[in-house]
Amino acid sequence: MNEFDFIKTYLANVPKDKAVLLGIGDDAAVVRPDLGRDLCVSSDMLLEGRHFFADAAPQDVAHKVLAVNLSDMAAMGARPRWVLLSAALPELDATWLRLFCDSFFALCAEYGVSLIGGDTTKGHSVFNVTIIGDVPQGLGLRRSGARVGDDVWVSGHIGSAAAALQHMLGKAVLPEPAAEHCRWALLRPVPRVALGQALLTLANAAQDISDGLIQDLTHILDASGVGAEIEEDRLPVLPVLRECLPEVVRRQCVLAGGDDYELLFTASPARRAEVEQAARQCQTEVCRIGRITAQRGLQVRDAAGRPIRLARGGYDHFA
Amino acid sequence: MNEFDFIKTYLANVPKDKAVLLGIGDDAAVVRPDLGRDLCVSSDMLLEGRHFFADAAPQDVAHKVLAVNLSDMAAMGARPRWVLLSAALPELDATWLRLFCDSFFALCAEYGVSLIGGDTTKGHSVFNVTIIGDVPQGLGLRRSGARVGDDVWVSGHIGSAAAALQHMLGKAVLPEPAAEHCRWALLRPVPRVALGQALLTLANAAQDISDGLIQDLTHILDASGVGAEIEEDRLPVLPVLRECLPEVVRRQCVLAGGDDYELLFTASPARRAEVEQAARQCQTEVCRIGRITAQRGLQVRDAAGRPIRLARGGYDHFA
Repeated sequence: MNEFDFIKTYLANVPKDKAVLLGIGDDAAVVRPDLGRDLCVSSDMLLEGRHFFADAAPQDVAHKVLAVNLSDMAAMGARPRWVLLSAALPELDATWLRLFCDSFFALCAEYGVSLIGGDTTKGHSVFNVTIIGDVPQGLGLRRSGARVGDDVWVSGHIGSAAAALQHMLGKAVLPEPAAEHCRWALLRPVPRVALGQALLTLANAAQDISDGLIQDLTHILDASGVGAEIEEDRLPVLPVLRECLPEVVRRQCVLAGGDDYELLFTASPARRAEVEQAARQCQTEVCRIGRITAQRGLQVRDAAGRPIRLARGGYDHFA
Repeated sequence: MNEFDFIKTYLANVPKDKAVLLGIGDDAAVVRPDLGRDLCVSSDMLLEGRHFFADAAPQDVAHKVLAVNLSDMAAMGARPRWVLLSAALPELDATWLRLFCDSFFALCAEYGVSLIGGDTTKGHSVFNVTIIGDVPQGLGLRRSGARVGDDVWVSGHIGSAAAALQHMLGKAVLPEPAAEHCRWALLRPVPRVALGQALLTLANAAQDISDGLIQDLTHILDASGVGAEIEEDRLPVLPVLRECLPEVVRRQCVLAGGDDYELLFTASPARRAEVEQAARQCQTEVCRIGRITAQRGLQVRDAAGRPIRLARGGYDHFA
């Protein structure tokens, strides 16, 4: 199969989105943005051996490469619209491709996203997705809006994906079915797209947790010129992690593990009931974990109120 | 230097474009599209060892990864607006990065493009650029609009980049300064952005030549449901290629070499004078090389009017 057959066979399904005037197959796609909306645009690159294992299931790779981009849209409160997928692959294996594409398109359909372009080439496995979403003009959620006194919230559970990675690398042992649950969190993260949109007029600042709670919260704090106090025992962590992981490993996973793709956001305490209602409507758990302070810096306190020292702030791709 | 320092140091220059409401540094960029315009979106991935040599100068790599995307905008008649750059690099070398970024931003400035996002990660060298441009609603140039009787036009010269590659691989010998001229065509292609926009209401179909004249013209013919006759001796080829390359090598370079990033377009013979005037205003040479026929298929005829047979239609990344 050559590149052109590949594109024809797997990618050139005509999007049903009327805003897509021209899909895959020309020099560029043509789309018509809706009036009164800003566009949110983001790109993520995933490499074999760094972001996924060489023997990863194609369904999982496809899910993750799209989900991490959908998560960026969630963090902006954006409605995801269009994606472009560039893929370098060592070979074109029809079975692998079919599984990859089925999974990719299933997630596209679930979130109402159209694949409108991309590129294919031969090489070490690399995937790059660019995603375009939209928000009502001026409303996109930013990292820079946190205010002193805001509650700090996080969705879902954190630390599970990092715990799964430790388990898969043989550095920690999780019992089944918890191990499978955590593996699922690592391989099939659920982007919090509905929650992000529901928070558009509620949250003051938001981002998704990809590099770990500490690192990502620090981005919000730096961008907003504020600090925060977080209470460790309020963090939404699967009980099994508390039971089965040594404290140092658990803390590393929960505070600095990353790959959570949960939403981290701040909102005024006056909006607590609305935040909780919005979360219920999105069928997504949210949890208050601390508050924004005028005092710069981030304090994480244990159950006894003692500050926790961390060896590493987050995940740095070049460290 | 870590990933965050890298982004801060080299990429987070605030775009002066007022339509960029939020640039690099959040989960996504936020841009405001102009009223009454469609967006053209395209992505290209370039890999070391496949699209550029391992010892390629960073300035050349940066130029090419952006230029090929600008060329896609040219082929749509679009005004390039915003780009996202994802890069995998084996290491963060400050000198290399400075040279790469200076070249990248210089080309951005030349074409009025703002870098609004992307990703960086560690790995084999890979670059992916996504570009977003805009056109007046409904006017984007497509491959599918060629009409029987149209002239077939090409800009600039073709075959030079492929000849340079043959020369660099030791498979052909070009004398200086022609070799240097061709190397420049390969390493620093000039995207025909102004010409593309000037052709918006003149051309019936257009695309850029990346995979070779035959292959790319065939895309136009297939999309338009027509055929074409091309006259070999009308093709805009540097005289030195005719003088120095064996006929079979020259034909391969000119007809199937690719990497030209010239515009290939069709227009009614009634618009000839306007096409020539538009090209002059863009200071870009254009050349009529044949015509669109009702008879399907592509015929390339030599100076004696005999059909030329080609061993290979174009460049297929997985062949």
